[in-house]
Amino acid sequence: RINGARLWDSLMDMAKIGPGIAGGNNRQTLTDEDAEGRALFQSWCEAAGMTMGLDQMGNMFARREGTDPDALPVYVGSHLDTQPTGGKYDGVLGVLGGLEVIRTLNDLNIQTKHPIVVVNWTNEEGTRFAPAMLASGVFAGKHTQDWAYDRVDAAGKSFGDELNRIGWRGDEVVGDRKMHAMFELHIEQGPILEAEGKDIGVVTHGQGLRWVECTVTGKESHTGSTPMHMRKNAGRGLALVTELVHEIAMKNQPGAVGAIGHVDVYPNSRNIIPGKVVFTIDFRTHLLDKLNGMYDELMARAPGMCEEIGVEFSAEIVGQFDPPAFDEGCVGAVRDAAERLGYSHMDIVSGAGHDACWINDVAPTAMIMCPCVDGLSHNEAEEISPEWAAAGTDVLFHAVVETAEI
Amino acid sequence: RINGARLWDSLMDMAKIGPGIAGGNNRQTLTDEDAEGRALFQSWCEAAGMTMGLDQMGNMFARREGTDPDALPVYVGSHLDTQPTGGKYDGVLGVLGGLEVIRTLNDLNIQTKHPIVVVNWTNEEGTRFAPAMLASGVFAGKHTQDWAYDRVDAAGKSFGDELNRIGWRGDEVVGDRKMHAMFELHIEQGPILEAEGKDIGVVTHGQGLRWVECTVTGKESHTGSTPMHMRKNAGRGLALVTELVHEIAMKNQPGAVGAIGHVDVYPNSRNIIPGKVVFTIDFRTHLLDKLNGMYDELMARAPGMCEEIGVEFSAEIVGQFDPPAFDEGCVGAVRDAAERLGYSHMDIVSGAGHDACWINDVAPTAMIMCPCVDGLSHNEAEEISPEWAAAGTDVLFHAVVETAEI
Ligand SMILES: NC(=O)NCCC(=O)O
Ligand SMILES: NC(=O)NCCC(=O)O
Repeated sequence: RINGARLWDSLMDMAKIGPGIAGGNNRQTLTDEDAEGRALFQSWCEAAGMTMGLDQMGNMFARREGTDPDALPVYVGSHLDTQPTGGKYDGVLGVLGGLEVIRTLNDLNIQTKHPIVVVNWTNEEGTRFAPAMLASGVFAGKHTQDWAYDRVDAAGKSFGDELNRIGWRGDEVVGDRKMHAMFELHIEQGPILEAEGKDIGVVTHGQGLRWVECTVTGKESHTGSTPMHMRKNAGRGLALVTELVHEIAMKNQPGAVGAIGHVDVYPNSRNIIPGKVVFTIDFRTHLLDKLNGMYDELMARAPGMCEEIGVEFSAEIVGQFDPPAFDEGCVGAVRDAAERLGYSHMDIVSGAGHDACWINDVAPTAMIMCPCVDGLSHNEAEEISPEWAAAGTDVLFHAVVETAEI
Repeated sequence: RINGARLWDSLMDMAKIGPGIAGGNNRQTLTDEDAEGRALFQSWCEAAGMTMGLDQMGNMFARREGTDPDALPVYVGSHLDTQPTGGKYDGVLGVLGGLEVIRTLNDLNIQTKHPIVVVNWTNEEGTRFAPAMLASGVFAGKHTQDWAYDRVDAAGKSFGDELNRIGWRGDEVVGDRKMHAMFELHIEQGPILEAEGKDIGVVTHGQGLRWVECTVTGKESHTGSTPMHMRKNAGRGLALVTELVHEIAMKNQPGAVGAIGHVDVYPNSRNIIPGKVVFTIDFRTHLLDKLNGMYDELMARAPGMCEEIGVEFSAEIVGQFDPPAFDEGCVGAVRDAAERLGYSHMDIVSGAGHDACWINDVAPTAMIMCPCVDGLSHNEAEEISPEWAAAGTDVLFHAVVETAEI
């Protein structure tokens, strides 16, 4: 069993970096706070006897050697970046859980045949630079590195420039590493495990995703002196599409979701009718046909709805992945570990996207989930119990050691 | 007749200060650009032989003496501040038209019995510091000066601090001046005069206004892993209220308008369901009962609509005035001037709020409107012809001289 108290202490120490305003964290990718969090993680890895690799996307790879020089490493990890109003566990548990696996191996003086590498993937959240899971996506060959470098944040700063600025751009070519397997521990970010009273979610599938950035174009004019029939109010386009997205998601129940999280209104003045609204729709489901169907229905109906009220609709996909099915062998290792340790468990679909979803395409991969209070995540009030964290990390430890072979 | 070419040159010179990004202006109140515009106006007034007064709200009063030391002055003016994406004429025409009246009197060597004061009212637009017409409102006793000083912009800076910072806070007590009459020339900011082919709008009434700042509160959570039935999506509250506002305005046709110009979504992240949305509704009509009815219907229906989708609605009035009826004598002077000069004209209701709407409560007041292309205003593409500007200023000249008596 791993050391739950040590794991919890590390989680609390990391949470001191980039504190939020309501008990959570604001440690967005490629900020000064991200750099500080990376440095702390590196110091812990080195103290545990690992050596750090760093690739050109800023992905961090802390390696513990194995006994067989020809064996490919088992990877374990997640991400240290957070939402602007994020929690202390989303991503962080998976990275520090990986570190705790190494610390426990050290305590027990266990050598594995395969090396073990604890990884921190850059920009998983995708809030500052869309899309999410950007650096694991480049690693898995989904995006080119040049394209990733050109992603810009709301202030117009590019991913590439910011990665250089914080000093965490490495020399290693991205995606050159070969993996024996990869395991990611993560909080569920949804309510199912807690509601079902299970300690462990054995993740068999993930939801696919479409992020659709929409622009509604109307005409800026005076809110007082423009007669109703002459208005081209882009804000009404946002309103209609907001409800359309909800309707499409409801029609695809169970197991589908849709919402608009990001909205920019131009010029955003109390007495100017919005001339333009830009917003991003997030559609997800674990069934590929449904996912494409939701997107198709949006594109079939939104332009006409907007035209009817005198505004124009256009859209562009800014993030997408199809629903992943994780590797049966790795999933089995997770299920067996939970069983062996006596934790209650159930098979589950991941509602969120994760770096494991991309890596699954280039290596045998699986995920372990632990419950979180009220299913709440992407909220500073995100909470888990130390027992849940320890149970998830115990299962991670057993699955990893089993796969890395003693 | 006034000198149309000189007037136009001055308009173009003022437009060089705080240029926008698309041919218009961004000279928002109490910015460095506002200070620069004020200094230019003062230099022109002094060159025209006037003396400048400045009150504690930053209102500028340039005075040309009359022949009767006991006669109250005739005021003429508008505002020099603009929207963030504003035009070159909204407000500016009324101030520089007033200056042109004085320059023409000087050219013709005409003395009037009553002094004439050209005024630039501070913060008419109300975009940076709500409400609109803030300083004329304090002058007319609608707001206290302390309250006005405490208004804050989006960056948290207060009106009082910013007025001091730009160096345009005077010593004069606000509202101490007595007026014989006040005239304001303004572009229509709507499509009626152009559509009717009229040179001059004789403004008999204005619309009243209610600015309602609304907050919809839901719960921030993950867009991917929060099941549809557990969501509290504040963005849907915005959507429903956007359409409710439109429905209420349409129900009150003709002669009523409603829209939402300003929206802030929190935390505004692509993969977080909005936990809070703050937005301002702008309702207007020239009929007091209708105006109150529109507000009452909003307050009766919006909370329930939001409750039904699991979010909470609250609202606060952040700007309001009742529909003004202008002084019959002053309105008559405008109509007579247009008639005498041979300009086509019609009676009209002002769609926008103006400083004249407040001053109308403390002095006999009237407004003159000239057409603008496509009725477009609060848009950098706002446009008028030099002929329209000259016709409006001709009428202003005659109405002012008539009232100030030779
Ligand atoms: N786990 C997580 O929240 N990842 C961010 C990408 C997503 O929105 O699913
Ligand atoms: N004239 C003008 O646009 N004033 C600003 C106040 C309003 O919104 O009506």
